[in-house]
Amino acid sequence: MDKPYVIGIDMGGTNTAFGVVNRRGEILYRGSISTLGYTKGDDYVKDLGNAINDLIEKNFLKGQIEGVGMGVPNGNMNDGTVMNAANIPWTKGIPVPFPLAAKVAEETGLPCKLTNDANAAAMGEMAYGAAKGLKDFIVITLGTGVGGGIVSNGQLVVGHDGFAGELGHVRAVHENGRLCGCGRTGCLETYTSATGVARTAQEFLEQKPERASVLRNIQYRPITSKDVYDAATVGDQLAIDVFNFTGKILGEAFCDFIAFSSPKAFILFGGLTLAGDFLLDPLKKAIEENVLFVYKGKTEIVISKLNDAEAAILGASALAWK
Amino acid sequence: MDKPYVIGIDMGGTNTAFGVVNRRGEILYRGSISTLGYTKGDDYVKDLGNAINDLIEKNFLKGQIEGVGMGVPNGNMNDGTVMNAANIPWTKGIPVPFPLAAKVAEETGLPCKLTNDANAAAMGEMAYGAAKGLKDFIVITLGTGVGGGIVSNGQLVVGHDGFAGELGHVRAVHENGRLCGCGRTGCLETYTSATGVARTAQEFLEQKPERASVLRNIQYRPITSKDVYDAATVGDQLAIDVFNFTGKILGEAFCDFIAFSSPKAFILFGGLTLAGDFLLDPLKKAIEENVLFVYKGKTEIVISKLNDAEAAILGASALAWK
Repeated sequence: MDKPYVIGIDMGGTNTAFGVVNRRGEILYRGSISTLGYTKGDDYVKDLGNAINDLIEKNFLKGQIEGVGMGVPNGNMNDGTVMNAANIPWTKGIPVPFPLAAKVAEETGLPCKLTNDANAAAMGEMAYGAAKGLKDFIVITLGTGVGGGIVSNGQLVVGHDGFAGELGHVRAVHENGRLCGCGRTGCLETYTSATGVARTAQEFLEQKPERASVLRNIQYRPITSKDVYDAATVGDQLAIDVFNFTGKILGEAFCDFIAFSSPKAFILFGGLTLAGDFLLDPLKKAIEENVLFVYKGKTEIVISKLNDAEAAILGASALAWK
Repeated sequence: MDKPYVIGIDMGGTNTAFGVVNRRGEILYRGSISTLGYTKGDDYVKDLGNAINDLIEKNFLKGQIEGVGMGVPNGNMNDGTVMNAANIPWTKGIPVPFPLAAKVAEETGLPCKLTNDANAAAMGEMAYGAAKGLKDFIVITLGTGVGGGIVSNGQLVVGHDGFAGELGHVRAVHENGRLCGCGRTGCLETYTSATGVARTAQEFLEQKPERASVLRNIQYRPITSKDVYDAATVGDQLAIDVFNFTGKILGEAFCDFIAFSSPKAFILFGGLTLAGDFLLDPLKKAIEENVLFVYKGKTEIVISKLNDAEAAILGASALAWK
């Protein structure tokens, strides 16, 4: 018989948060361990497994958990491994990918699946969020970077190697594109991440020294995307132009994504979605103006309504339902 | 019990060719009707149904056919309909899409599925061709236009509306891109179709009137991609440069496709693949130079080995297997 609960684990660089989730997407019990200080994956898994087993026992949930889902930076869904995850020392410089899902399964006695953050977000939206009932959609995470979780015909598109959906690294700008952390230029995430928005604001301020902007009052620290949003809300035209520029680039990229998998909806997730219509309006306009006629007016753009603090655990937990 | 044969139908603007296909991908019996002269879909379906039923009876195959698959320009796999297919008058100006698959099923008494040409090609490659055993690959058709048939986790990516995979209409060139038949500019197919290659040759000849090229001997008719290939084989540097330019643009686009669905292989199909290494070498080089590190060296580029004359029927037939 199907069991009523799953466990979702959000593995971050600093903390690993987890929770017991029911079918309605409510987190009933929570726990966490520090991710810091481990040099071996096995030690981390042992502590994580103990913490999970404690939570299960303490709440009399033994035998009632269907499985465990993990959201892991750079996690590979195909084989449940991880290697070279940003900020996780024990995943680096190892000869073969670390079989994290298998080890967690061993430690907890529960089946375990893992995937990367954007894919977990997509699963969460499909199980509990804006994509309920949709079989074709794309989740775009707009945070420090840009990630993609693509669902086609109800299944995650993970690719032959498990690493599909790196939508932050399609070429958004061909000529004189910005240098990306990946070493290439013009990547979407250099423009449409929170970091990219801050970079655009900085550029606009420098390129047009004659333009007034409340952003010029920010000194002694770098401008953030939140600053740009705050400036836009008080009518600062330069800040509004930053979002127009960002939305246009994102919308033009979406036109290519639409030609690829023709999603019913894009679901935007992450810090930058705070910008709301400042971002959505130019984004939708760019799609309307640039999308191939056969797709015109068919694709919705929505902002995730999953609670930011819970979304990562929920998304991971969605992997564990049968 | 599974039946040993399927029927594949290739509906073109001029002719509709069909054949009885076995599990090894051999076309055992063939037939065809003209596609011309019909003003109503129902009349076309009646004649097509009769011709198929005749072929089945004549060869004593009654009860041995599993189903019918059709490759139809602009065909929608989700609901088996067609509307606004290029060169098929009775699909145009109709109030609702024509339910072609359902009508053919009625006329033949066999289950019928249809999809567009590029998707049919992908199914054909998976059933009988270069993609046998692959679950993640992309077929790119390089003919008059450019089309995409995307397979993820063993399933065609068709999208919420059935029209996914319009890879000829992603933006290959952002600045001053060529005008495309779709009304937009910079589309991949304006550069990497057979027509695009001819266009590039024409441009190169005009832009550099001082460069010698055997292509200058072609007069009184437009240059074709075959001319460019013939010129390249005799060492004509301008013709070789045309393929270098084409392969580079195609390879850069492939990098974005890889970031999207991480296919194990691209299978190239259609007239332009005649160019062989003239196209493949710069294409592979562009991928190597531009692909995100996580995908480096993982993706194969192969040219379809399916017999051109048979591929369309085979591809369509592959839809019909259970």
